Amino acid sequence: MTKQRKVAIIGIGITKFGEHWDKGLRDLALEAGLKAVEDAGIHGEQIDGGYVGNMAGGNFAGQEHIGALLADYMGLDPIPVTRVEGACASGGLALRQGYIAVASGIHDIVAVGGVEKMTDLSTADVTEILGGAGDQEWELFMGATFPSLYALMMRKYMAEYGATEEQFASVAVKNHKHGALNPYAQYQNEITLETVMKSKVVASPIKVFDASPITDGAAMLILAPLDIASSYTKKPIEIIASAQASDTIGLAERYSLTSIEASKIASKNAYKEAGITSKDIQLAEVHDCFTVGEVLATEDLGFFKPGEGAKAAEDGRTTFGGDLVINSSGGLKAAGHPVGATGIKQAVEITMQFRGDAGKRQVKDLEYGLSHNVGGSGATAVVHIYKRA
Amino acid sequence: MTKQRKVAIIGIGITKFGEHWDKGLRDLALEAGLKAVEDAGIHGEQIDGGYVGNMAGGNFAGQEHIGALLADYMGLDPIPVTRVEGACASGGLALRQGYIAVASGIHDIVAVGGVEKMTDLSTADVTEILGGAGDQEWELFMGATFPSLYALMMRKYMAEYGATEEQFASVAVKNHKHGALNPYAQYQNEITLETVMKSKVVASPIKVFDASPITDGAAMLILAPLDIASSYTKKPIEIIASAQASDTIGLAERYSLTSIEASKIASKNAYKEAGITSKDIQLAEVHDCFTVGEVLATEDLGFFKPGEGAKAAEDGRTTFGGDLVINSSGGLKAAGHPVGATGIKQAVEITMQFRGDAGKRQVKDLEYGLSHNVGGSGATAVVHIYKRA
Repeated sequence: MTKQRKVAIIGIGITKFGEHWDKGLRDLALEAGLKAVEDAGIHGEQIDGGYVGNMAGGNFAGQEHIGALLADYMGLDPIPVTRVEGACASGGLALRQGYIAVASGIHDIVAVGGVEKMTDLSTADVTEILGGAGDQEWELFMGATFPSLYALMMRKYMAEYGATEEQFASVAVKNHKHGALNPYAQYQNEITLETVMKSKVVASPIKVFDASPITDGAAMLILAPLDIASSYTKKPIEIIASAQASDTIGLAERYSLTSIEASKIASKNAYKEAGITSKDIQLAEVHDCFTVGEVLATEDLGFFKPGEGAKAAEDGRTTFGGDLVINSSGGLKAAGHPVGATGIKQAVEITMQFRGDAGKRQVKDLEYGLSHNVGGSGATAVVHIYKRA
Repeated sequence: MTKQRKVAIIGIGITKFGEHWDKGLRDLALEAGLKAVEDAGIHGEQIDGGYVGNMAGGNFAGQEHIGALLADYMGLDPIPVTRVEGACASGGLALRQGYIAVASGIHDIVAVGGVEKMTDLSTADVTEILGGAGDQEWELFMGATFPSLYALMMRKYMAEYGATEEQFASVAVKNHKHGALNPYAQYQNEITLETVMKSKVVASPIKVFDASPITDGAAMLILAPLDIASSYTKKPIEIIASAQASDTIGLAERYSLTSIEASKIASKNAYKEAGITSKDIQLAEVHDCFTVGEVLATEDLGFFKPGEGAKAAEDGRTTFGGDLVINSSGGLKAAGHPVGATGIKQAVEITMQFRGDAGKRQVKDLEYGLSHNVGGSGATAVVHIYKRA
């Protein structure tokens, strides 16, 4: 794209991720929204546009029209607020639309949120609803669930590269270690390799502790043109690239099961837009819906060569003291995965890190951060790159 | 917004609207998409971005992630395709995002679609799902359905202005007269005032024939920068304004039940952007989900004064030979209302009219056209204005 204006994050807000029995979808979105507005030091009236990522409010909560709901409850009427949906990449897509709106001059100050309320239903119902991220007619209708689709990828990766289940398990152990340091994470406890390995099999070789949980939560960003950002915050974070790519909705039609082509294309385009390479990134929040998802991401984003991601995780190269930090927030695995909110949470985490507000999980000498959000088994991928403004 | 580039419609495609027992959501979207690509005289590879409006694929068809689905089935991978949702305004919002993408230079040639597959479920289920367009917690959970919400508006209008049920019924008669001339319409038959008046009461005073039907269908546009549009088509149509506004999601919190504030604000902004007034419009495709919806629209958009819309319809001022033509397609009432597709269908109809391809329903001396798409009971409204390029 022709970038007309540079875009900055001037405010962030996030709810605790977890099981919020006492809060509905709108309560969560409102909480994150008010925090973001307060954090940006603006008045709601200054916001002139909004986007919100939500995957399945219709099925989870009987509520569509989430854009209007958010505009109403945040007191933003009559400004336009639009919901975007790309399964578990909904948050990342909302961020991208907000970025486009500010970059192009359509809006000046934009609220970009993500929200999902998932825990009101049974695990079986949630699994079926999440299946709508894949190919309903050729995958779900045939009995495939998301754990089973990612299990195919994991098994193929193990067969192709000789990776072990323990290597994948090490991703979960590492993300719980990070999540234990994140006060917004759903699970703030460390786990052992044995816990993962002995956990119940969901879809072999994926076990419960290879999988991200079912989560309620919301996150919100306030975006503004970079040139006015410093009048709102001392620590604006610039979004220097935004890229999105698509692939077949069904897994069976892909050329490869051991990489996600949309992630490769989106990240390649994002690096090009940012004028950097994967080697410049110190922190990446990647889409670890399952441990194999993180392994593939670290390869598709260029941090490790194909087949080396699982071993790199086992060798501690993706945590503090390693090559770079992957998922300082705890990732989807430990921080939780309220699907529509995840893409925004990633940007919130990166902003906290740039600001030096990440406490015990602070990444040192951070120059460039990256977020990577995937929809379904990889039919949508969206990548953003950030730096301190 | 700062308009960087002028935007034109260079291709259109639409399925017959109706009950497609033999076709699923993807088949409908693909049919409209291929027609639009063929109509534009382009190759699919020339498309570099896409947006699709869909309200409730998750509930109607178990399918979310409609953007990726469309990218896949239209052979557009790896370009980004994003679903947007704003209840029954989803199509209009998709058009607006496509317009923004082209106007701002983010994309050059963009596919903008809308699709909904509704007839696989019972009327009761569809009614409940459509309820997700309103306030789930304060309206639907309490038993309100959309016919009942619009019935409140109709009753209030009748009480305030002394309008009659026959006047509203005349809207349905007029739209069936138009729909009878539209080969894509769900109902291509004329009806009498008596048919409407004697039809079953849904939510008094709304009767079955005051209401738009449950419909399957899809529509698609190809957008391009105006300066290259003439290399693709001899008859490019320019979109000269795009505006969206929000209001409270629940009806009870509105200041007025006899106008839709979001429609007023969106149209005011659109007229300003276009540099014209309501008097310049010869054709408007407006959101007649119920006959009262059309009456309010013709007032909110400035064609008639408050309280005069119902009588204007009865007096024939909204059909051929009147002040302007409202809903030459037959509107939602007769052409059908596949909710996510409606906003795109409106633009398809207006494009056909500008091209002189509207057959027996051709509007003569057309200079400016307008489309008006509403989500829920008015929590979202989006207005576009068109002229021959």
